[in-house]
Amino acid sequence: MQKRFVDFALGLTWEKVTPDMRAVLKLSLLDWCAVGRAGAGEAVAGPLHKMPGAEENRGKAAVFGLSRLLPPREAALANGTISHALDYDDTHFLHIGHPAVVIFPAVLAVAQHVGASGRAFLEAALTGYEVSIRFGHWLGRSHYEAGFHMTATAGCFGAAMAVGRLLGADHAQMQAAVGLAATRASGLKAQFGSMGKPYNAGLAAANGVEAGLLAVAGMTSDAQGMESFAASHCGERNAAAVAGLGEQYVSETVSHKFHACCHGTHAALEALAKLDVSAQEVEMVHISVHPRWLKVCNLAEPSTGLEAKFSYRMCAAFLLAGLDTGRPETFSDSNCRREDLCVLRDQVVVAKDDTLPDTAARVRAVCHNGMVRQVVFDLEQPTPIAERTKRVKSKAVTLLGKRSAQAIWRKIDSLPTGLAADNLMQLIRD
Amino acid sequence: MQKRFVDFALGLTWEKVTPDMRAVLKLSLLDWCAVGRAGAGEAVAGPLHKMPGAEENRGKAAVFGLSRLLPPREAALANGTISHALDYDDTHFLHIGHPAVVIFPAVLAVAQHVGASGRAFLEAALTGYEVSIRFGHWLGRSHYEAGFHMTATAGCFGAAMAVGRLLGADHAQMQAAVGLAATRASGLKAQFGSMGKPYNAGLAAANGVEAGLLAVAGMTSDAQGMESFAASHCGERNAAAVAGLGEQYVSETVSHKFHACCHGTHAALEALAKLDVSAQEVEMVHISVHPRWLKVCNLAEPSTGLEAKFSYRMCAAFLLAGLDTGRPETFSDSNCRREDLCVLRDQVVVAKDDTLPDTAARVRAVCHNGMVRQVVFDLEQPTPIAERTKRVKSKAVTLLGKRSAQAIWRKIDSLPTGLAADNLMQLIRD
Repeated sequence: MQKRFVDFALGLTWEKVTPDMRAVLKLSLLDWCAVGRAGAGEAVAGPLHKMPGAEENRGKAAVFGLSRLLPPREAALANGTISHALDYDDTHFLHIGHPAVVIFPAVLAVAQHVGASGRAFLEAALTGYEVSIRFGHWLGRSHYEAGFHMTATAGCFGAAMAVGRLLGADHAQMQAAVGLAATRASGLKAQFGSMGKPYNAGLAAANGVEAGLLAVAGMTSDAQGMESFAASHCGERNAAAVAGLGEQYVSETVSHKFHACCHGTHAALEALAKLDVSAQEVEMVHISVHPRWLKVCNLAEPSTGLEAKFSYRMCAAFLLAGLDTGRPETFSDSNCRREDLCVLRDQVVVAKDDTLPDTAARVRAVCHNGMVRQVVFDLEQPTPIAERTKRVKSKAVTLLGKRSAQAIWRKIDSLPTGLAADNLMQLIRD
Repeated sequence: MQKRFVDFALGLTWEKVTPDMRAVLKLSLLDWCAVGRAGAGEAVAGPLHKMPGAEENRGKAAVFGLSRLLPPREAALANGTISHALDYDDTHFLHIGHPAVVIFPAVLAVAQHVGASGRAFLEAALTGYEVSIRFGHWLGRSHYEAGFHMTATAGCFGAAMAVGRLLGADHAQMQAAVGLAATRASGLKAQFGSMGKPYNAGLAAANGVEAGLLAVAGMTSDAQGMESFAASHCGERNAAAVAGLGEQYVSETVSHKFHACCHGTHAALEALAKLDVSAQEVEMVHISVHPRWLKVCNLAEPSTGLEAKFSYRMCAAFLLAGLDTGRPETFSDSNCRREDLCVLRDQVVVAKDDTLPDTAARVRAVCHNGMVRQVVFDLEQPTPIAERTKRVKSKAVTLLGKRSAQAIWRKIDSLPTGLAADNLMQLIRD
């Protein structure tokens, strides 16, 4: 099984990849740049920017919000953590993890270090995406339920192989990178709600960089790393996870967040947006979701912005009132106190419906004029690439402003034809 | 439970510690310097000395065999790995782990970075020893049997708290350091037999340094780190592990290796040495050990030096022939081919005896003159401090030469009265 992953990692070329897959990867990169830059002001960036003992570190890799350049491992640690600070990055439901915030930090840091071409950068990133999602799927739900944060654990393997690829690892070195990732990988879900959550993304990126660098420098390791990891970390070993590896790309179905709140609220917000009703029209809004979400994001009367991110009722009120739920600032303490929003909030009723998949929501609006409208939205339903492109670009504009978002997109769009590493740095800083 | 560990870590002072405990810690430090310096020429040091991407790293912490000084995390990674390269460092049977190779690298690197006093260095190191051994005991045998390398997992917690202490962490920061260690800690036994094994020691030291530094710089984490880690890592939660914490020191019963081979052969070699018979006298030697060891270190006819380390028969032959089993070079391929040694090897018979504890061996020699002598040796039996001192010093002389060993000892002996960090560096290099 590990050999299949290694063969895949060594064999991927940009030509083999479908245009839609290429487009999605570039959108994820834009999305990551946007959430990473926007995350640089968050509190968790502080300890990383001023990490004691690393003041003298100098390297070639840029970090969100930092003027110094760092060695690749340190840059990956910082960027992984910072870009996950807002919890606004992409998600894959197959392994319930966040690929961008582990893979891009690792690959970008090493690409800057070795002066990789834009194309080599993209190929390595896609390798990392596909390995982390599929390996996470292979580990399965039992791994997640045992307490492991898939973003960090599966992510570390993807990052290590992506880095190995960028460093020109041969077959034996790639196996060694996997083995070192196996003994390095960690990350607990118990960190959710603390800075430890974004740190999990950073440590996975850093672990991947270290494993890749050491493997290529000659360190050997357990030859059955993936299997050893599964054995000690409640892995299910789902055979389905390697089906079609290298032919189809599960990375293509990665999901971008368009609302700056808990992913569990997204299907409901999408459905509500499709209903196209205004605050003035609405008498009652009924939201139905899979029961698992009621414990996660159904705070009835949130009093802080952070709580609002986990409140169907408040999120719906923001959307109905025309606030931009794609903007992190919308989720403020003061908006939770606004009288008109609280009135709207109290017009929203949330119920469970276990016939719905946990990626879906049904929203029904009853209007003052007696009209009733209903929409079911499932995040798993495919969205045409043109629509995804429009929405990711629009999110980047919301987070960064039009000029900056467009400048980054132009850089990303030219990557496949061979932008140099110096320009990669500009993805992090202007 | 975590609070007890945190209170212990913040409360330890050198005055509270018994003279024997102090003496043992200093012996372990000497022992660690010796195996670390001797390990600097091993192959695994290469990838760490020339780790790509870290060429520009500059710091204040010395590394075995490297002329540059590195930042604390990087120095801890390198020294932890290098000092475990020979697998000749100290062991504690309570948690089946190697404390020195995780704790000293972490503490020494940070002590150099902050310019700590010798006394602060020793207090932090003892904190790390005691936490890692007792926390490992708390995790228990089920954790080890699930595939986790206790040296690395429990070691990371000890290192993080030791570093927190050295950085002047307050109660909340120390809790954060534990939480970050919980999401960082990793290390699989599956690495045994590859460079991944010593790397496990290095990564634990590095993880501890990173967790401590980030916690003191303001990163927050899961408040129940030890419990979360146990929940996902098959922890037994042995209540006995915290009994007497801060009053008695389990670190005092750490075991030093005096033979450069598998710890499973040591009781037999000690017993054989006590028999005091020569190669000329011996007709047959019968070694009995607990059955678990027969799978580990009973290679009948080893053909390489590495194999000889896992061969009761060859180890016994070396000892009988007067070779110094404390010297790594004794375990050479050519010695495995020496005719007189092979004859002796074939006079040794190994048998299992499940009435023996796994720390003991019974050796019976039948001599040409009809004399039969028998000795049982148990590694758990207490050895007077004077005897331990003599043997650790003698081992250091074997590994480093008399002048160097004595110079290091003089530095260590003066630490409690306040040697500065510059002098700590000399423990790594002359």
